[in-house]
Amino acid sequence: MEAELKEMLNDLDSLKQSLPDPSNLASSILKLQSRVEHLTKLAKSAPVRRTKVQDMSAEVVDSNPYSRLMALQRMGIVDNYERIRDFSVAIVGIGGVGSVAAEMLTRCGIGRLLLYDYDKVELANMNRLFFRPEQVGMTKTDAASQTLSDINPDVVLESFTLNITTVQGFETFMSSLRNKSFRPNKGSGVDLVLSCVDNYEARMAVNQACNELNQTWMESGVSEDAVSGHIQLLIPGETACFACAPPLVVASGVDERTLKREGVCAASLPTTMGVVAGLLVQNTLKLLLQFGQVSPYLGYNSLKDFFPTMEMRPNPQCSNAACLERQKEYLLVKPARDAAIIAKMEAEALSVPEGPLHTDNEWNISVVDDSEPERTDATSSDALPDGLTRELPAADEFQKFPAAEPATATFDDIEELRKQLDALNAD
Amino acid sequence: MEAELKEMLNDLDSLKQSLPDPSNLASSILKLQSRVEHLTKLAKSAPVRRTKVQDMSAEVVDSNPYSRLMALQRMGIVDNYERIRDFSVAIVGIGGVGSVAAEMLTRCGIGRLLLYDYDKVELANMNRLFFRPEQVGMTKTDAASQTLSDINPDVVLESFTLNITTVQGFETFMSSLRNKSFRPNKGSGVDLVLSCVDNYEARMAVNQACNELNQTWMESGVSEDAVSGHIQLLIPGETACFACAPPLVVASGVDERTLKREGVCAASLPTTMGVVAGLLVQNTLKLLLQFGQVSPYLGYNSLKDFFPTMEMRPNPQCSNAACLERQKEYLLVKPARDAAIIAKMEAEALSVPEGPLHTDNEWNISVVDDSEPERTDATSSDALPDGLTRELPAADEFQKFPAAEPATATFDDIEELRKQLDALNAD
Repeated sequence: MEAELKEMLNDLDSLKQSLPDPSNLASSILKLQSRVEHLTKLAKSAPVRRTKVQDMSAEVVDSNPYSRLMALQRMGIVDNYERIRDFSVAIVGIGGVGSVAAEMLTRCGIGRLLLYDYDKVELANMNRLFFRPEQVGMTKTDAASQTLSDINPDVVLESFTLNITTVQGFETFMSSLRNKSFRPNKGSGVDLVLSCVDNYEARMAVNQACNELNQTWMESGVSEDAVSGHIQLLIPGETACFACAPPLVVASGVDERTLKREGVCAASLPTTMGVVAGLLVQNTLKLLLQFGQVSPYLGYNSLKDFFPTMEMRPNPQCSNAACLERQKEYLLVKPARDAAIIAKMEAEALSVPEGPLHTDNEWNISVVDDSEPERTDATSSDALPDGLTRELPAADEFQKFPAAEPATATFDDIEELRKQLDALNAD
Repeated sequence: MEAELKEMLNDLDSLKQSLPDPSNLASSILKLQSRVEHLTKLAKSAPVRRTKVQDMSAEVVDSNPYSRLMALQRMGIVDNYERIRDFSVAIVGIGGVGSVAAEMLTRCGIGRLLLYDYDKVELANMNRLFFRPEQVGMTKTDAASQTLSDINPDVVLESFTLNITTVQGFETFMSSLRNKSFRPNKGSGVDLVLSCVDNYEARMAVNQACNELNQTWMESGVSEDAVSGHIQLLIPGETACFACAPPLVVASGVDERTLKREGVCAASLPTTMGVVAGLLVQNTLKLLLQFGQVSPYLGYNSLKDFFPTMEMRPNPQCSNAACLERQKEYLLVKPARDAAIIAKMEAEALSVPEGPLHTDNEWNISVVDDSEPERTDATSSDALPDGLTRELPAADEFQKFPAAEPATATFDDIEELRKQLDALNAD
């Protein structure tokens, strides 16, 4: 609108100069000019966008959009909050959960967001957070990009208006996840994929892509009656994939979207979707910034405020070939990884002092123990204090025999899995 | 802007008519006119506000903002969703939790929202949901009213830019809660108060107001390290009030707001606040629309995804005089209320058929039992089936002796409370 008004001012100027007798008309035109100038000011004052911020500051001033996030460091929750700018997160499905998840990550100052959806904003979406009535008719990706870039211009936004369940859509989805231009030195294109779709087919497409790319992802969902939901962490090969334990009943061969259009629709609530999005992004932050415990599965039963958790191991009979590949790879690296974890835990157990040297230690002074580096060495495994026993063999044993079975509770599963893999390899 | 453009068109018209020689200038002016007409269209199309809706429709069309909410009825979750339009909810504190709670209730189509805050929007608030950078400098109540009325013009919004901890602010707060103009036939001015404030003093002010008005309310809070929060239901006299079990440590005599301005601020996250707001409004919906179980207290430990619950009974030694008054009143009505609940439960237990008459009952036909009305009568207390025993005395016994002590687990508390009340009355 600003360009339009500027042109109008130019026109009025030339109009004034072309007048044969300016006495009568000049005042009218001057009046018009001042009115247009006023309009220009009005148009300029409406969309104030904040400028980009070079570095995240912890300074406590009202004008700092990151002060309350950087305070997480001072509070001892995260080691280095600013690392969030290095991460890329892909969100598939910008509906009731995905849009709120995108807004949360944007406000947290995530480095880069990739958004995928093919749908348009409708008035029927207004019972959930994020989209506004004036965005009706826009694609969800366009509307989201508009709102999110206004909220935080520091976030790199890439949006894809496509359906990942089509052949071409899936290919574009795959190549966008592989694209390493944001951080060329990183192993993968994105750090995490969040699935916020509302149907089985799309979940299976995300599952397929993530299994093929060995990409960690989180699944989310809300029930058709709107009163329960869940989130789930999926690490290819290490946890169950979405095909390892599929839902018991799936409408096969029926387009769920068409089904909903025929006079029947699922219920939805901004509360349930807001809670699910909050739990999803909270676990995303815990995973990326390494604090707290990431839930492998977390349910939300809103009628009883009950939050079930569980862990799901991969199914050695999974129908997804890429999942079986990842399971095979995981089995090869697991012993060394377990050993490293055990060694770290042992080192931590050893380095805990038996009691404070001084009960009143206002300045938090501690004595540097010269013997500590040796204690944390994973190979010096004889130094266990009284009362501690090893549940798993020591690290050096794993290093000598990388394929040895650790004596854990998962022994049976691994045995079974090996049989499955042998059978598969024999094919 | 529209009025301004209209005037401009009129001016151009008169300008055209006053021209001595229209040949040269007429085309320029026509061009100007068409440009202004285009601007007028642009200005009209930008802020598309949907029109008010007379009745909530369950029709499944993209243009119906309530279809997904009305579907809660078809799904069997709520009996009558449209009742939500009869309810008034007051939200005190329009910050990270309060603003999201207000948006959720607005999108759910709540009848009337009362908003209270004295603060202004700052860039430092941008790490939480709801407020946008272009609203910086506006009062939170004005910014919220603007956004919420755009989202859902059906909701009656009343906003109060005041501090409830000042004498005048508290008085205005009290009289606004008493105002019954929204639904003159209702017993109270509002159905629920949601406390979304960030300091002890403001919570105590809400507590005082609700105890005095015998007003049910819900408390919410988020920890200073941003990784945990809680919600709590407070029914004066029936549950603990905020003064019954105050926090162990409170900064006395120090303005918490000033404290935060001095270079140190609490951390905050859109995730934790979004989850707390979601749980708060979900429990609000359960309470108002009578479905599911309303949690008396629900905590959220985000580091472990742990959600502790508990119940808190009133403290007979509470320092709040209005709380003690409500406790006294509650003790008088409790026996009759318990009896009614027991009678209802008994009636329900009796009306459960021993087995389905027809295992396949596609049309959900049931036989009307003529003896049922008599069975639900609270006075016919002899009709207990085998295997059911009464834990509380029957209803008629309460009616004869309204002050009799029911033989429940709370007996000791009531005995103690009575002593307290006697002591108070003796003063």
